[in-house]
Amino acid sequence: MKAEIICVGSELLLGQIVDTNATFLAEKLAELGIDLYYKSTVGDNLPRLIAVLKQAWKRADLLILSGGLGPTMDDLTREGIAMLLEEELVTDPVSQSRIEEYFRRRGAPMTENNLRQALRPASAIPLPNPLGTAPGLWVEKTGKILIALPGVPVEMKYLMEEEVLPRLQRAIPAKESACLLSKVLKVVGLGESAVEEEIMDLLTAQQNPTIAPLAKRGEVLLRITAKADRREKAESMIGKVEDEIRQRLAGYVFGSDQELEEVVGRILTEKGLTLGIAESCTGGLISHRITEVPGSSAYYAGGITAYSNTWKIRLLGVKEELIQEYGAVSPQVAAAMAEGLRKQYGVDLGLSSTGIAGPGGGTPQKPVGLVYLGLASSNGTITKEMKFLWNRSENKVAAAQAALTLLWQYLREL
Amino acid sequence: MKAEIICVGSELLLGQIVDTNATFLAEKLAELGIDLYYKSTVGDNLPRLIAVLKQAWKRADLLILSGGLGPTMDDLTREGIAMLLEEELVTDPVSQSRIEEYFRRRGAPMTENNLRQALRPASAIPLPNPLGTAPGLWVEKTGKILIALPGVPVEMKYLMEEEVLPRLQRAIPAKESACLLSKVLKVVGLGESAVEEEIMDLLTAQQNPTIAPLAKRGEVLLRITAKADRREKAESMIGKVEDEIRQRLAGYVFGSDQELEEVVGRILTEKGLTLGIAESCTGGLISHRITEVPGSSAYYAGGITAYSNTWKIRLLGVKEELIQEYGAVSPQVAAAMAEGLRKQYGVDLGLSSTGIAGPGGGTPQKPVGLVYLGLASSNGTITKEMKFLWNRSENKVAAAQAALTLLWQYLREL
Repeated sequence: MKAEIICVGSELLLGQIVDTNATFLAEKLAELGIDLYYKSTVGDNLPRLIAVLKQAWKRADLLILSGGLGPTMDDLTREGIAMLLEEELVTDPVSQSRIEEYFRRRGAPMTENNLRQALRPASAIPLPNPLGTAPGLWVEKTGKILIALPGVPVEMKYLMEEEVLPRLQRAIPAKESACLLSKVLKVVGLGESAVEEEIMDLLTAQQNPTIAPLAKRGEVLLRITAKADRREKAESMIGKVEDEIRQRLAGYVFGSDQELEEVVGRILTEKGLTLGIAESCTGGLISHRITEVPGSSAYYAGGITAYSNTWKIRLLGVKEELIQEYGAVSPQVAAAMAEGLRKQYGVDLGLSSTGIAGPGGGTPQKPVGLVYLGLASSNGTITKEMKFLWNRSENKVAAAQAALTLLWQYLREL
Repeated sequence: MKAEIICVGSELLLGQIVDTNATFLAEKLAELGIDLYYKSTVGDNLPRLIAVLKQAWKRADLLILSGGLGPTMDDLTREGIAMLLEEELVTDPVSQSRIEEYFRRRGAPMTENNLRQALRPASAIPLPNPLGTAPGLWVEKTGKILIALPGVPVEMKYLMEEEVLPRLQRAIPAKESACLLSKVLKVVGLGESAVEEEIMDLLTAQQNPTIAPLAKRGEVLLRITAKADRREKAESMIGKVEDEIRQRLAGYVFGSDQELEEVVGRILTEKGLTLGIAESCTGGLISHRITEVPGSSAYYAGGITAYSNTWKIRLLGVKEELIQEYGAVSPQVAAAMAEGLRKQYGVDLGLSSTGIAGPGGGTPQKPVGLVYLGLASSNGTITKEMKFLWNRSENKVAAAQAALTLLWQYLREL
C-alpha cells in the first residue's frame, strides 16, 4: 500500500508555522508499515489543490489530507475532494446536529459559516470530532482510500488515533500488514564519512533492513529500518544488523534512542561516582544537559560557570600565574579547572571546558572555535583540544557534546 | 516568479524529524514577495526524486531543494539534478580543495566519499559552505533557477542568507519585487488570551497588515505582516500597527526579533551592572542563555549550579537552618541564594532559581513544577513563585524564561 500526505494551508507556504502534522501522520503510517513516497503542501487555492489531489489519487492507494476543513471561505478541502471524486457536496444531518450541540455546550453563538463544516462529498463518511467543529472525512472508492483531517494538531491527532487508525488496520489486506520498525544507533567520536567507511559493505548491500546515516553536531545517527510481516521478525532482523554495527564501531556506539547525558548518568549511578562541572566557554550548557536527566541530583553535585578569570581563580583555585603564562584558553587551565573542582568540592570527577565561542575574542594563535576540555579523576587528568568552525551558539553545542563524549569515553573504560 | 520547495530525505517521510527547513525557506521567499505554490517531500530514491524535480521544473520558475547533499550513497540530490538537466556530474576543483581544507583545519581525516561532495552538474555554480563539507549548488538555465542546499539546518540557513538571498534579489525582475514584510513583537508576563483581549479590535479588523499571535513557553509572539509594492511602504504600515500594540501592551513588549537575554544584556551594559546566577532546578540553563549573547562576558561574572544542598550552603552561604526550616524549594532559600551570590562574589545583581523540575520529588504541599525565583540587588531582594504543569525539560525552560522575565522587569524600571 502506497500512501501520500497532503497538507493544505497558505500559512504553511508562508513559513508562518512549522508543519508538525505531516511528521505525526508520517510516523503513524510507518508504524503500520505503509510506504509513504511523497508529502505535498498546497495553499488555500482550489485549482492547485485539485491538481495535487488528482496526481496523488493517480499514484497512491491511500491519501491523507490535513487542513482546509475550517468554517471560512478559504477552507477548500471539502470542495477539492468533491471535484476530485466528481461528486456533489451534501449536508450531513448528523454532523450538523453535532456542530450545533458543540456550540450549545460551549455557550457560544454559532455563525452561519459553521454549517459549511457539515458538508461532505456524497460518498464520504464523516468522522465525529468532539474537540472541534470540523468532522474528518473517510472515503473508499475504486479500491482507494482518502482521509481528510482538520489542521488543528490536537484535533487531527485525536481523529487519527480514535477514528482513522482502527479503520486503516481493518482496511489493510492481511498479507500487506507489514511491520516497518526502526531503531537508531548513536555514534560519537567518529565523523559521518568515517562511520560510513567502517560499514561501507553493509550500506552497499542494504535492502532490508536499510541503514541510513544522519549527521548531527558531534553525533552520527544510524537508523536501521526493517520490514517484515511480524514485529518479532522485524526486531530480529534489526538485531542482527545492530550486533554487526556495534562490533565494527565498538567504542563509538554509545546507545540507541537515548541521549548521551542519559547514558553517562546511568554509568555514574552504576559506579557510584559523583560529578562536578566547571564551564567557561560552554556557559552552563553541559550542566543544563546533565540536569535534563531525571534523578541526576543523585550523582551531580553541581557546576560552576567561571566566566571571568576572577571566578576561575577564586572558585576553582586556578593559579593566576597559570592564566598569565598560558592564557585562560589552554590545556593547562582546562586541567586546573577540572582538578580544582575535584579538590575543592570533593567530587569524584571534575569536567571542564574553556575556549573561544566567538564571534569576538579570537587571535591567529587561538582562533574562534578553539576549545580545551579537561577531565580530572582519581586516575589523573586528561585534556583534549577541539576546533570548531561554527557560530557562537553552535560552537557551544559542539563543545558541550565533546565534553560529554570525553566523559563517556572515560566512564566506558572503567 | 513562482517557486517550489523540495525537501529530500527518507527520514522526513518516516516522521522521524520535523521539517523546519521548509518553514525557514518559505519564510524567506515570502519576505522577497516570491509566491510559493507547492512544497514537496521525497525520500532518498532516485526515480522518485527525478519525478518530483521534473514536475516542479515544469510548473515553477524557481526550485529550492534541501537535503541529499551529504557524502553517503543515499545522498542523491546531485545525481537527481544532473539527470533533470541532462548534464554530466563533474568534480569542481575549488569545492574539492575547500573540502580538503575543511578537514585540514579541523585536524580530522578525510575519507574518499567526501569527494562526492565536490561533484556538481556541469552548469551548476557551487556555493561555498564554510560550516560543513557540502557546498550548495546554483543553476540558471532556460530562464529558470534551481538551488540545492544541504539539509543540516545551520548550514542551510547560512547558505540561504549569505549566498542565495543576495543572488535572488539580483535575479528577481524589479517590477515583481512586491514586498511581503514581517516583524515579530515579543511579549512576556501576559498569556496569549490576555494579549488577545487587549488587541481584540485590531485582530478583528486586520487585513493588511495582518497580526498573528503565537504562544510559546512564557512568551507570546505577535507577527505583523504587511504587503506593499515597496519595502518602505510595508515598513511604515507595520510601524503604525506596532506603535499601537506597544502602547496597549506597555510594560510587556520586550522587543522585536530579539531574544530576552539580548535585551537584558543590552540594559546591563547600558547601566554598567554585573550579573551572577545561582541555579538549582534550572540546572545551568539560565547561565547558558545569558552566555548565548556575544560579549556577555562584559557583564556576566559567572554562575553556580548548586544542585546539592551542600553546594547551596558552601558556595552560596545559604544557612543550613534555613533549608531545614523552609526546605530547599522555598522563597527564603531563593532569596538567600541570590543574596549569597551578591555578597560573596561582588556582583551587582544575583539571580536565583530553586524548584522541583520533576518527574520525581514532588509532594502535595510542593508539587512538581513549583519554582521560586530570587533577585538580589542594591535595592533589596525580590522573590517570585511560579507553578508550571509540564515535563522536566519544559519546566526548566519555563523557569529559566520566568527568571529572565523577572530580571528584565527589574532592569526596565531602573
